[in-house]
This record gives sequence, C-alpha cells and structure tokens, in this order.
Amino acid sequence: MLFVFDLDGVIYRGNQPAPCAAQTVAEIRKSGHLVFFLTNNSAKTRIQYAQKLAEMQIKASPEEIMTSAYATALYLKENGFDGATAFVIGEEGLFAELSPIGVAFAEPSEDCRADVVVVGIDRSINYLKLKSAQQAILHGARFIATNRDATYPLENGRVEPGAGSIVAAVEVASGVSPIVIGKPETYSLEKILGLTGSKPEETVVVGDRIDTDVAMGKTAGVKTVLTLTGVTSREDILELPPHLMPNLVLENLCHLIQALC
Amino acid sequence: MLFVFDLDGVIYRGNQPAPCAAQTVAEIRKSGHLVFFLTNNSAKTRIQYAQKLAEMQIKASPEEIMTSAYATALYLKENGFDGATAFVIGEEGLFAELSPIGVAFAEPSEDCRADVVVVGIDRSINYLKLKSAQQAILHGARFIATNRDATYPLENGRVEPGAGSIVAAVEVASGVSPIVIGKPETYSLEKILGLTGSKPEETVVVGDRIDTDVAMGKTAGVKTVLTLTGVTSREDILELPPHLMPNLVLENLCHLIQALC
Repeated sequence: MLFVFDLDGVIYRGNQPAPCAAQTVAEIRKSGHLVFFLTNNSAKTRIQYAQKLAEMQIKASPEEIMTSAYATALYLKENGFDGATAFVIGEEGLFAELSPIGVAFAEPSEDCRADVVVVGIDRSINYLKLKSAQQAILHGARFIATNRDATYPLENGRVEPGAGSIVAAVEVASGVSPIVIGKPETYSLEKILGLTGSKPEETVVVGDRIDTDVAMGKTAGVKTVLTLTGVTSREDILELPPHLMPNLVLENLCHLIQALC
Repeated sequence: MLFVFDLDGVIYRGNQPAPCAAQTVAEIRKSGHLVFFLTNNSAKTRIQYAQKLAEMQIKASPEEIMTSAYATALYLKENGFDGATAFVIGEEGLFAELSPIGVAFAEPSEDCRADVVVVGIDRSINYLKLKSAQQAILHGARFIATNRDATYPLENGRVEPGAGSIVAAVEVASGVSPIVIGKPETYSLEKILGLTGSKPEETVVVGDRIDTDVAMGKTAGVKTVLTLTGVTSREDILELPPHLMPNLVLENLCHLIQALC
C-alpha cells in the first residue's frame, strides 16, 4: 500500500503535531508500506518540509514529499516552460522549486511581461505584484495557480488566507482562469504514483479537506480517509453528496492502522 | 432631464479628459438639464473629484458627485452602523466618507474584530489587511464591498486591478459574499434620484461599462448611453444579450446632445 498524507491539518497544524502523527507514520513504514507527503502549500521547499517533519520525529526524505510548488515545476518542464520567463507571486518554496528548471524570474513592474505567471501563497502580496500578474496575463502569459486553497489552518484552530484568495484576485483582475496544479487536480498525485510505481487501487489518500484531498482522491480512484484535525468538522460530513463521501472518517491518525490494515 | 455621468472611461481616462467632455457637460447645464457624476471608484473624496473635474474645466460641486464610498457611508448610516467599528480596506476617499458618520476604524491585526468590514480599492493592500478582513468576517462582521469593478482604465488604454480584485480575495478567504453598494446595484442611483427629485423616465445614465453602468441603468428603468472611450469596444456590443443593450452607443461624448435632446 501507498499512504499519501496531506500535511497542514493532518500531520500538523502550524508547528503543533497532530495526535499520533509520528508513531502512525513510523508504524506504517515498519509494516512495509510506502509513505508520501502531499501538500498544496507552496511556501516551503521540500527540504524545509522534511526538516519540519524531522523536528516532529517524523522521518521523511525530500524525495518523499510532493508540494504544489514542485508539482508546478514538473508541469512547467513537461510543457516546455523550462528556460521561459516567469512572473511569480509566491514565497521561498516556489522560487526554489522553479529555479532548477531554468526559468528566469521577471521583476514586478507596471509593464510586466512573461511567458508564464505562477501564483501561489505569498504573505508579501501587494498591489504592484497583482498588477504585474494582470499585465503579463493580459499580454499573453499562461496563468498557472499552484492551488486554490481558500484558507490554511493554524495552531490555535484558526485559519489564514490561502493561495486561493490571491489566485482569485489575479483571476478577477485579468479575466482569465488559471490552470490549477495542486489538489483537487490529480496531477501531483499522478506524479507520486509514477515515482513510487503504485497503482490507484493500492493507494490511500489521508487528508483533512473535502474540497481538495477527498475530491482529488475520488477523481483518481484511490481510497480516501478524512481526519477531523483540520478544517472539516463532523457536521460538514453530514451534508456531503455521496460522490464526495470519504471511505473512512477518523477523529485523528491514532486509529488509522487498525482501521485500514 | 437628469444626466448621470460615469467618470473613469467616460469623462476621463486617468488624467486625460475624454473628447468633448467639458463642452458637453456645459451645454447640458446651459439647456437647463440636471447633471450628476457617479463613480464606483472609492479612492478619492467627492471634493477631490470636484477638483479633478475643475482642472479639466468641468464645473461640478461635491454635492453633484456620488462615489461608491459616499454611497457606502449612506448605506451604513441607514442600516444602523453609524458609530459602529469598521475594518476598512480602502484609500483616502473611503476613510474620509466614513468618518463623518462616526464609525471607529479598527487597525489591521492578526485577531481583528469589527461590526462591519468595508472593502474598496486599496493600492496599499497587503496580506495582514486580507487576514484582518477575513478574521473579522469569520467572527461575524457584516461584509460590504464598495463595488466589484474588475479593472480601472488608465490614460494609455491600459487597465489596472480594480476593487473587485481585492473583494474577490476577501470573499474567498472568508467564504462570505459581500453586500455590494456600487454599480451595477441601483442603491447609489436611487440616492441620486432622491437628491435631485428626478424620476427614472426622465433620467439617462452615460457610462463605458456594460456590466456596471448599463446593467444598473437597465435594472433601474432609466435610459442608458454607452460611450466607447473606456473599457467596452464596438465588438463587445455585438455579443450583448438584448436585456443589456444600451439605448444608444456613441464613439465619445461629442454628439450626445444632438443624439438625445
């Protein structure tokens, strides 16, 4: 089996590990199953996520982590944008993953031009960046969004604006809808299946969001587990249409192995 | 007759007056008709708009100008928010129009609380402001948007992101849709009809946008004139559904009087 874990809201909230996260991942590995981590958050590099997991006593190599930033780099390379000019609204993780494929980064400017505009979470967002993205797209740049998460969960049960909030601003200003790379699109999961040599029927996605994790899993035909440690509550599940109902709903990761294996 | 002129794209683009703007307004006044100016742009105060018009040799008192910012102040007062706490994403015009109704302005903060969140164009937008609006709305603040214009026209035929771009970011982050005050809603036009004692059948709206100026005019049952000096092109008109077709389409304001009077 391949276990694909979402990070924010499943493995941790902010810097607070979710109950049983470390021991569950360790036991899954010990039983001979494969583990991968898949996050829509493009703020950090895969190396930084591996370090964050290590600080929580969770063993993970950067090669076992897929971020929407890395998936975006893979997509750009596959579509001939290696070596292109990119205007990027994003943080360190996005720039760091796009650099190795040889893109040149356009600076924000009133008259910004680029082959591609990439938008992810950027907590230094400002009007000039919005306008630069708008101008480049109106002049023909392809518009790529790392993901559309409306919010990200924080330690204290609160949320903050997600990449989807910034993507919406660029979408309205440009009148163009983006190509979305992250969940609920299946692109990043397909990459994981390719890298691990796994089939959908031997794969389970563990997430905290219906609209990203579960929706992606359903489209890809893999098993889906929802944990209630993130943005979805038990009441939310009562209103779900059947095609979005996860195979399993768990309070947290503590009983994942007993429930599945 | 009452002539209600949009500003950006009709009377001027940026600081460049549209052809015949000053002489047309003067001739309409000379013929004994009423003139009002109605803009969705909340960046400036009514006094500043009157000054800008004066610089273009267009006579207008602040009392003949309706902005989405002033309309928002009227709406808040009518709905019992005078004296309330407001978190405002906006520029000078919005703050200046809201001050006289006695609202207290909440500062941006990680834990922002307010009775109402008001969002207009803000070229100093940043992540903390987005997050403050999100937190206040999630904690029960009423969400008001001055307008949803996706873009604003500039001198050189280009555009920049409009209030609608920022409103969309707050809407996605909070999951709540705003009450919209400006065009295409009819609230601001109704206030103008009230202030001038005019009836819809003796009123004409002159605008450059189908989705705001014309749509509002159609809903309110007034005559609509579209000028091609702003964001709408002649090709755009070919694709219009009948219920959004303006009564008259003019290249610019130069032949407005001959066409209407």
